Amino acid sequence: MPSTTGYAAKHSFSRLKPIEFDREPAGPGEIEVEILFCGVCHSDVHQCGNDWSNTIYPCVPGHEIVGRVTTLGKGATRHAIGDIVGIGCMVDSCQSCDPCKAGDENYCEGPNGFLATYNGPFIPAAKAPTGENSYSSDNTYGGYSGAITVREEFALNIPAGLSPEVAAPILCAGVTTYSPMKHWGVKAGDHVGIIGIGGLGHMAVKIAIALGAKVTAFTSSKEKLAEATNLGATIVMEDDADAMKGLKNTFDFMLSTIPEKHDINPFIPLLKRDKTIVLVGALEPMKGVDNSVVAFSRKSVAGSLIGGLAETQEVLELCAEHGIGPDIEIIPIQQINDAFKRLAKGDVRFRYVIDMASLRDEQAGVR
Amino acid sequence: MPSTTGYAAKHSFSRLKPIEFDREPAGPGEIEVEILFCGVCHSDVHQCGNDWSNTIYPCVPGHEIVGRVTTLGKGATRHAIGDIVGIGCMVDSCQSCDPCKAGDENYCEGPNGFLATYNGPFIPAAKAPTGENSYSSDNTYGGYSGAITVREEFALNIPAGLSPEVAAPILCAGVTTYSPMKHWGVKAGDHVGIIGIGGLGHMAVKIAIALGAKVTAFTSSKEKLAEATNLGATIVMEDDADAMKGLKNTFDFMLSTIPEKHDINPFIPLLKRDKTIVLVGALEPMKGVDNSVVAFSRKSVAGSLIGGLAETQEVLELCAEHGIGPDIEIIPIQQINDAFKRLAKGDVRFRYVIDMASLRDEQAGVR
Repeated sequence: MPSTTGYAAKHSFSRLKPIEFDREPAGPGEIEVEILFCGVCHSDVHQCGNDWSNTIYPCVPGHEIVGRVTTLGKGATRHAIGDIVGIGCMVDSCQSCDPCKAGDENYCEGPNGFLATYNGPFIPAAKAPTGENSYSSDNTYGGYSGAITVREEFALNIPAGLSPEVAAPILCAGVTTYSPMKHWGVKAGDHVGIIGIGGLGHMAVKIAIALGAKVTAFTSSKEKLAEATNLGATIVMEDDADAMKGLKNTFDFMLSTIPEKHDINPFIPLLKRDKTIVLVGALEPMKGVDNSVVAFSRKSVAGSLIGGLAETQEVLELCAEHGIGPDIEIIPIQQINDAFKRLAKGDVRFRYVIDMASLRDEQAGVR
Repeated sequence: MPSTTGYAAKHSFSRLKPIEFDREPAGPGEIEVEILFCGVCHSDVHQCGNDWSNTIYPCVPGHEIVGRVTTLGKGATRHAIGDIVGIGCMVDSCQSCDPCKAGDENYCEGPNGFLATYNGPFIPAAKAPTGENSYSSDNTYGGYSGAITVREEFALNIPAGLSPEVAAPILCAGVTTYSPMKHWGVKAGDHVGIIGIGGLGHMAVKIAIALGAKVTAFTSSKEKLAEATNLGATIVMEDDADAMKGLKNTFDFMLSTIPEKHDINPFIPLLKRDKTIVLVGALEPMKGVDNSVVAFSRKSVAGSLIGGLAETQEVLELCAEHGIGPDIEIIPIQQINDAFKRLAKGDVRFRYVIDMASLRDEQAGVR
């Protein structure tokens, strides 16, 4: 396969700049995909900045990829050339552990965990229990690039009813919020609370409503209080003490989508007895929880990470069926550094999606 | 009913000293009980010291009460005069909310919550939503006393196979650890981890073994490592890095019985995927949990509080059937202040039980 171009961070403090690199040609059971759109996830900002102390540089982020199949490897039969497919946060997993067999590839317990679409295996070689890496590399390059090669099972079908640019953020923001709702059994008539109205949060609201839930969303931003009214949820300011008090013991399920350390103590009283609040946004140490409040009504605080392949296909179908998708702002790749800055400030309604035609234009000298 | 004597703390900094007070005569559906034994719970130390900032003084602690029925109120038919009965952490609840109807009186959602055996209603009048208190008083006096009057439903039957002094700690330490094991479905063959080997922890080990589980218990005390070997569990030092590493992804259920703020982060990797660690000992703000570790295998951190009446009867029967009970050290009431000091230092194997004959001797001038 010819070399491709990606936008990469070379250090934690550097702007993303173009680099050239080679993608592997499609091996057996693999496909090559020309990338059309890639969503910009808040974790891309964290990863490029090495906020989780595990970034491998150069880092080409992007795990909300939609593209067109250009080449089929030997024996690859799931997709046809020209198909529009989606690639989310994973490009491989061990396929043999219990979670993988159960369709929970996102919790792969193989020796290196799942292979992340960018920044490599969850457990890189140096830290792997066996001292080896079952994947071919310690790093992977994501969707801020022109093309990608992937095992065909890790490419999802984009339903006809979803445009590719709208489908892209469903591959992370969508499934990350859908998966815990499914696991914890959110059903029609439930009252669901969504904390944070960003990329994940606004998708969580739409998905919960599609599942038949009554939804209340919480924000700390006056702007979002005004702008999120058309999501179909009741919007509550977190610092509105009266509103918070009035919602005590209300929710069958709560989901926190805030992408950094925050205090969930104000939300725990809002859960009904025996119910669970799940944190999907913050992958880091949290503020301590007051166990007296948790224990007095047998509540749970849980975490959840993206979703499995089957769940990802399910949420794509759900969105197509209900005619929902992320509210997106399309940007050219050349604006990615500004987009990162605005994203870090929460200044986006609600998901940036990069149009990769801008990368091809750049290469062709059009930009 | 004649006045009785109890040992009370009058301030957060005072030793427990005898006070005289009146118990109500048994009203309709109530019984009067002469107290024979009362267990000493770590929460008695917390409550007397106002560690939870909610102590009403004078505070007569004690909620692991076993006694003999002396008087039946009108219409009381569940017990006969002379029966040996147990009274745990609750002496009343609203009996009409969903949790009460489901046998979860410990999660009573009535206007004042359940009525604690000592230190009054969970939500005292001043803080009650209605501004009123559905119970007769804002305070209650517990089992460090000669007698108590209680609704007959809140007195459990002590099975013939359990001696009254051994039965006493089952009413709190037993049910507090049994209830979450039942709720989270601990079953034969499960691998259960118990954190802390004190009053609650050593009962948790015995109960989990009775349920057919394989049990590993964790301690920070070298003394307990040596002394707890006959509990039937594998004992592990929390600071044994190799042992902790070797137990990764091992447990179907974990229970932390440590009675104060502590760090559960070292234990979360030891849970299997999708499993839960429940905190029952510490009713206070905890150290923050690293959500990256929780989320990467969809784990939960939950809390649980004592247990319902039916569960309390169940765990009494379970203990009688399996011939298990707490390891106790019987003390006279006159040693309670020393016992509190030793308890605060963890210096007990594993539960103090007060022989209330010592109170009657004192009143008779024998002591």
